[in-house]
Amino acid sequence: MNLDKTMRMNYLYDFYQSLLTPKQRSYMSLYYLEDYSLGEIAEEFDVSRQAVYDNIKRTETMLEQYEEKLLLLKKFQERQQLVLQLKSILDETQASDEIKQIVDTIEKLD
Amino acid sequence: MNLDKTMRMNYLYDFYQSLLTPKQRSYMSLYYLEDYSLGEIAEEFDVSRQAVYDNIKRTETMLEQYEEKLLLLKKFQERQQLVLQLKSILDETQASDEIKQIVDTIEKLD
Repeated sequence: MNLDKTMRMNYLYDFYQSLLTPKQRSYMSLYYLEDYSLGEIAEEFDVSRQAVYDNIKRTETMLEQYEEKLLLLKKFQERQQLVLQLKSILDETQASDEIKQIVDTIEKLD
Repeated sequence: MNLDKTMRMNYLYDFYQSLLTPKQRSYMSLYYLEDYSLGEIAEEFDVSRQAVYDNIKRTETMLEQYEEKLLLLKKFQERQQLVLQLKSILDETQASDEIKQIVDTIEKLD
């Protein structure tokens, strides 16, 4: 499996899973999060390997289309970059715990 | 027009307009952003007032359903609250311009 693609699909799945059907969510989470093979998923759901493959491909396309429109992953990465920059400056300047706490909270938001 | 609802629809429209059809976008932006009446929109597009009303109602429901699933407005408001908290502390502690600049950039992200 292509690792970059796997990471990207994991992220996109995180952001957009609420827009998928239950079946799409099942196949995607088994394939991308739990590392099942297409054959194992096919057996689990008693469908053909080809059916699983087609469903996952279609779901991947949908996730990329949602990202094209809403840019949630891109915006998240921009925010994270700024927060990391901020944290490194705050570390140098020995900012107060109160400030650090708020920045940590912002960092944890998706 | 209910002002609270208008503000909420403006926000939801901002976040989710990319998921609407061109017609939905036209009606919503005329009605909510440019303050056209249903009758004026109907005239502009040469359709019935009822057709415009139904389309706008359906679009409002769609926007609320997207918000239920993706929570972009809710998360945006949470982030903004934290950023404002941070800004007020930074003002008190006379933080460096570099820090203020990064926080301002984070504030401007949607």
